[in-house]
Parts: sequence; structure tokens; C-alpha cells
Amino acid sequence: MAYTFTFEPNNAPKQKPDSNKLGFGQYFTDHMFIADYNLQHGWHEGRIVPYAPLLMDPASMVLHYSQTIFEGLKAYKTTDGKVVIFRPERNIERLNISGVRMGIPPIDEEFALQAVMQLVNTDKDWIPTGEENSLYIRPFIIATDPFLGVRPSDTYKFIVILSPVGAYYPEGINPIKIYVESEYVRAVRGGVGFTKTGGNYAASLKAQMESKDKGYTQVLWLDGCEKKYIEEVGSMNVFFKINGEVITPSLEGSILAGVTRNSVMTLMKDWGMQVTERQISIEEVYEAYQNGTLEEMFGTGTAAVISPVGELNWDGKGIVINNGKTGDLSHKLYDTITKMQRGLVEDSYNWLTTVE
Amino acid sequence: MAYTFTFEPNNAPKQKPDSNKLGFGQYFTDHMFIADYNLQHGWHEGRIVPYAPLLMDPASMVLHYSQTIFEGLKAYKTTDGKVVIFRPERNIERLNISGVRMGIPPIDEEFALQAVMQLVNTDKDWIPTGEENSLYIRPFIIATDPFLGVRPSDTYKFIVILSPVGAYYPEGINPIKIYVESEYVRAVRGGVGFTKTGGNYAASLKAQMESKDKGYTQVLWLDGCEKKYIEEVGSMNVFFKINGEVITPSLEGSILAGVTRNSVMTLMKDWGMQVTERQISIEEVYEAYQNGTLEEMFGTGTAAVISPVGELNWDGKGIVINNGKTGDLSHKLYDTITKMQRGLVEDSYNWLTTVE
Repeated sequence: MAYTFTFEPNNAPKQKPDSNKLGFGQYFTDHMFIADYNLQHGWHEGRIVPYAPLLMDPASMVLHYSQTIFEGLKAYKTTDGKVVIFRPERNIERLNISGVRMGIPPIDEEFALQAVMQLVNTDKDWIPTGEENSLYIRPFIIATDPFLGVRPSDTYKFIVILSPVGAYYPEGINPIKIYVESEYVRAVRGGVGFTKTGGNYAASLKAQMESKDKGYTQVLWLDGCEKKYIEEVGSMNVFFKINGEVITPSLEGSILAGVTRNSVMTLMKDWGMQVTERQISIEEVYEAYQNGTLEEMFGTGTAAVISPVGELNWDGKGIVINNGKTGDLSHKLYDTITKMQRGLVEDSYNWLTTVE
Repeated sequence: MAYTFTFEPNNAPKQKPDSNKLGFGQYFTDHMFIADYNLQHGWHEGRIVPYAPLLMDPASMVLHYSQTIFEGLKAYKTTDGKVVIFRPERNIERLNISGVRMGIPPIDEEFALQAVMQLVNTDKDWIPTGEENSLYIRPFIIATDPFLGVRPSDTYKFIVILSPVGAYYPEGINPIKIYVESEYVRAVRGGVGFTKTGGNYAASLKAQMESKDKGYTQVLWLDGCEKKYIEEVGSMNVFFKINGEVITPSLEGSILAGVTRNSVMTLMKDWGMQVTERQISIEEVYEAYQNGTLEEMFGTGTAAVISPVGELNWDGKGIVINNGKTGDLSHKLYDTITKMQRGLVEDSYNWLTTVE
């Protein structure tokens, strides 16, 4: 089914930023997509309009009770000039999974996908060139009832904005240093840890600030009850290569089912590697370090793709991984995925959707 | 120190709602207070302006990462015509406690208090009469950087809005029915459960929807790890009267340190009652029900003041409290506090601040 959205062109286009100095998520393109939801009409009035401030009632529920969900995906320009998006259907599917948990009405997946595709097509000149660059796509839904009682909103906005970005971490593909968090908790089973809702990120800021002050780029989250099992690193899924086997925490409801997580697992299995999803404790990682079998550790996520971890600090105990250097597996995964995204290797999994 | 705020009057004042049909949090007064924060100037430009939509960049961090905190307090008109606010300094203090956890810069407490007082004074004609009515005051802080990386914002807005309200629950002082939640989790130690941040409320919506579908007004939250100990009821603190002793869950970091909680504890202790803050399990409550010593249960909070609980459903087991009727203690607490708020009994604790 083809959706037709109204289009209001931006007659005052902005100057595009220097593609060598993009950073992450600080520049926005000339247009955005908006659709509204109410009980009577469901999702309606999809429109591409000039990027501009929203008029929001100060009582809008999202500002008080944080009823909001989002997604993050990326568009690339391939070497032969096509515009492609990496596995967008996965992100749209997950948007609705988050929505169910957060009491937000589902959005037709084809409607949301078309919104993303048509907006990217409108602003495709904003897709930056350069190896680590891409156009970051941020779909999100916010609760807009001007109401202060605690209940799900009856009205929402679905918005898509686009940001030309460089590497998420200044380190790029170079290893980051991580602090193992044993005081603050991100999520537990029964909570909202598996969703992309703002509250998960708000809850993580304090630990991130304190780890940064100690000289670390991010924190490694442990489970919220026993502070024993590994959950995520920053807002990325995490993988360990121990004695040839690749281990990643299983999805128990407290961590995100990452699209990049799924992609790297598929790749590694097809490369004949042993990949295991299971609970893994920080003690096990420390023991592997001590006996010399901890070979690699890396985070995965849309923003950073693959982010190797060179060092962990666990209650003052240092764990140096692969001498603080990017491991072969991290490199191979990064190269494979980023080359696929640029059309330099075959898209044998049909992960790319071409924007036309 | 007296703060001077600029004042822009609303030249198109709204019609005031029928004070018999206020509901909760759906009408807003003619003015609001706004101040801005940036790294260079700190909190600045405090101003009272007409209530109007905010212009917000769609990339504003609060819309994506829910970095936000709020408070809720109430102003009343006493029978002799004074305007009073109940313990406002406690709420402002707690706003900063929430802020520290959420990475939000502290606001000078006198500045925030003056903002509340001067705004209430500006719109004092909106304070509704009627026994269950009051002017609900909602101070909140939102992160405003237009930025998609995950880190604390560098800019914020502190806003105060006012809403003339009636009873929070349609039941008023009549007992509500509560579903004991054993699937979903609100918060754990190490998380943000003790703060008034939007994410706590967003995380609670699904359980609230499902309990409502089953015929219950709210849920009773259990601890997030063992699902054993009682935390809060809805967004209220909770008290049990068992065999003459009043028990309320101790503050372990996962529940809010309620101002009404503190007030009723003070009152009951001064009435010579035995009041204990400690962990209390749902099993203990069930046993007390079975052996006939569960005398009363009630929630406390600014919005509902005292909300008696008439019935619990714990995994299908019904717990009827005081034959589903409002207990003497609940009544006495409700009467004492609401009469104090209206100047009908002496403010012997100096809990009222007069707005002049």
C-alpha cells in the first residue's frame, strides 16, 4: 500500500555542515515528518514540512510523564549513488514493541516506513559522504494531551527528524574505556529496559556523568537485583569473545533487542563461529581475563555500529582487553557492516532498503 | 532575598471552569512562570507570562531522553480569604533532590519558591472554592538542548503552571480498589524510583491500564527483585494499620519521600500512635487480613491527600479492608489536613505558607 503524504517545501534551506565536523546529532535537515493520533481518526495527516519548532502546550503529557518512544536508524549513500537504509523494517517493528509496553497506540508499519523513506528522499542531499558518516534517522512518538493526571495520553505525534552524523564516539573504531557500574541501576525484568523509551536514557545520565569524570567513556550495566550479570554497555548491546566463543547477554526483558546485535550474530554464525546468548557475569569476564582467554569485547548499536572496548574498571580492578587494541573480530564486523552499508560488499542478507 | 520577575499580563483571560466539574489537571490558568538555564548564566530570566504553547525544537532532549523532573503542590483559599500553600519548601527541596539524580542543575530554592508564590498570587482568582477543590501547582524542569547524543543537556527550562482541580479520584474520600501488581515493576534500588521524574510514571502506565480493565483504580507496586515487599500504591505512598500499629514502607531509594507521607506520620505520632517505617511484605498484609488484624489501608499524596483502600486483589486472593469502608484513621487524617489547609484548624506545625 502506498501512502501519500502532503509536502510543504522549505523555502529557506539551511547551509549544510562541514562533513568533516559533523559530530553526532547536532545538525538537522530542512524537513521533518509529522503525523497526529487521536481516538477518532487514529494516525492521520502524515505530512512532510519544513523543520521547525513544535508548538507544545506546557501541560503536554510527554513533558511530565515521559510517555515517549523512539528509534534510531541510518541512511547511506552507496558508492554507485543509491540511497539505502539499513534494516528499517526492524526498527519500525521495534517502535511498536516499545509502544505496547508504554501504552502508546500502534502505528501501521508500512505508514511509518513510508514516512521514513519519503522524508529521507526529500532530504537526500543531506546524506554526508565520508567513511564514518551517515544520515541518522530519528522517528519518535510523543504524548500530547495537555493533562496532569497520570494515565496514557489520548493524543500523540509521530515525528521523524534527520541528522547528518559522523562517528558517535570521538574514538571511532578505536577502543573505549568502560566503567563497570555497581551503584546505579538501569533496568530490571518487569520494567521497561527492553524498550526505547526516554526514561531508560534519563536514568542512565548520572552514572554516565560520574564515569566520565573518572575518565571512562561509558558504563557497563549490571543486572539491577544481584549486580552480577552483564546487561549493556552505555546504550549498546555487548559481546565478549572468550576462548574462541562469542557470548552476548540473552534478552530477558531488561535490555534492548538491538538490530546491530542481531546483524552481527547472523554474520558471525555464518562465518562458522560459535555464538551464544546467555547470562554472563562480570566475575566470569574477570576470570577469563585472568586466565588469558578474554580475547575481545565490543558494543553494538546503530549509532556507533561496532565499538571495541579496550579496558574495564570493575571496582578498581583493571581488565585490559587485547592490549587495549581493536581486535580482529571487531574490525571484521565493522568493515563488513559498513562496507555493506556503502554497497562495497554484496548485500547477501537483503538488509538494505533502497530509497527511490 | 527577594527575586523580581518580569510580568507580561494576559490580555485575553479565559473563562474559569465550573468549580463543580473540575476533575484533575485539565484546566490551566491565565499565566505561567518560565526561567531558562544555560552554562553561562545559570538560571535566569524568571518571568510570568501568559499561559501559551512552548516553542520546542523537535530535537529537544526532553522529547527523546526524558530528562525531566517535576513537583506537585497545592494552594488553597482559607475561610478568612487568605491564600496558602501547603509545605512548599518541602517540594522545592525535593525538586533539587530529583535533579541531582537526573543530572539536572540545582535551582536556588528561594528563587523557585518565589516563582511559585508570585505566580499563585497573579492567578489567585483561579483558586476554586469547594471542599475537595484546590489550585494544583506544577513546577517542572525540562532539558532543551536540540541534540540527539545521550548526555545531560546544557540548557533547561523551569516552568510553573497552575490548574484548578477537584478530587484526584472520582471516588474522593471513598475507598478505591487496588490490584497487587506481580508482573510489571516500577523501580528498584539504584534506579530513579525516589525521584519525581517522568520515566517512573511512563513505566507505570501499562500496569495501570491493565488493572483498570480488570476493574481496579490503581496498582500496588511490589519491590522489583523479589516481588515481595510493598512499595507504593499508584503514585501514592501507602500505610497499613495492623493491630493498632501504623506501618509504612521505609525509604530505600525506590519510592518517593512524600510530603503528605511525612505530614501524616507527624500527625499520627503526635496523636500517640505507634508509627513504624520498615519493609512490609504483601504476605504479612494477607496474614493480617486473615487473622483479622488488618484494620485500615490508605494511600497518601498531594493530588489525593488521603485515599482509603477498600479492597486488594493479590493473585486472585481478595483482601477486603474495613468492610470496604473508609476507616476512622483515614477520615481523621483527611479531615485534619484538609481543615488545616482551609484554615479551619490551627496550623500548629507551621505547614502553611501565606501568599501575599
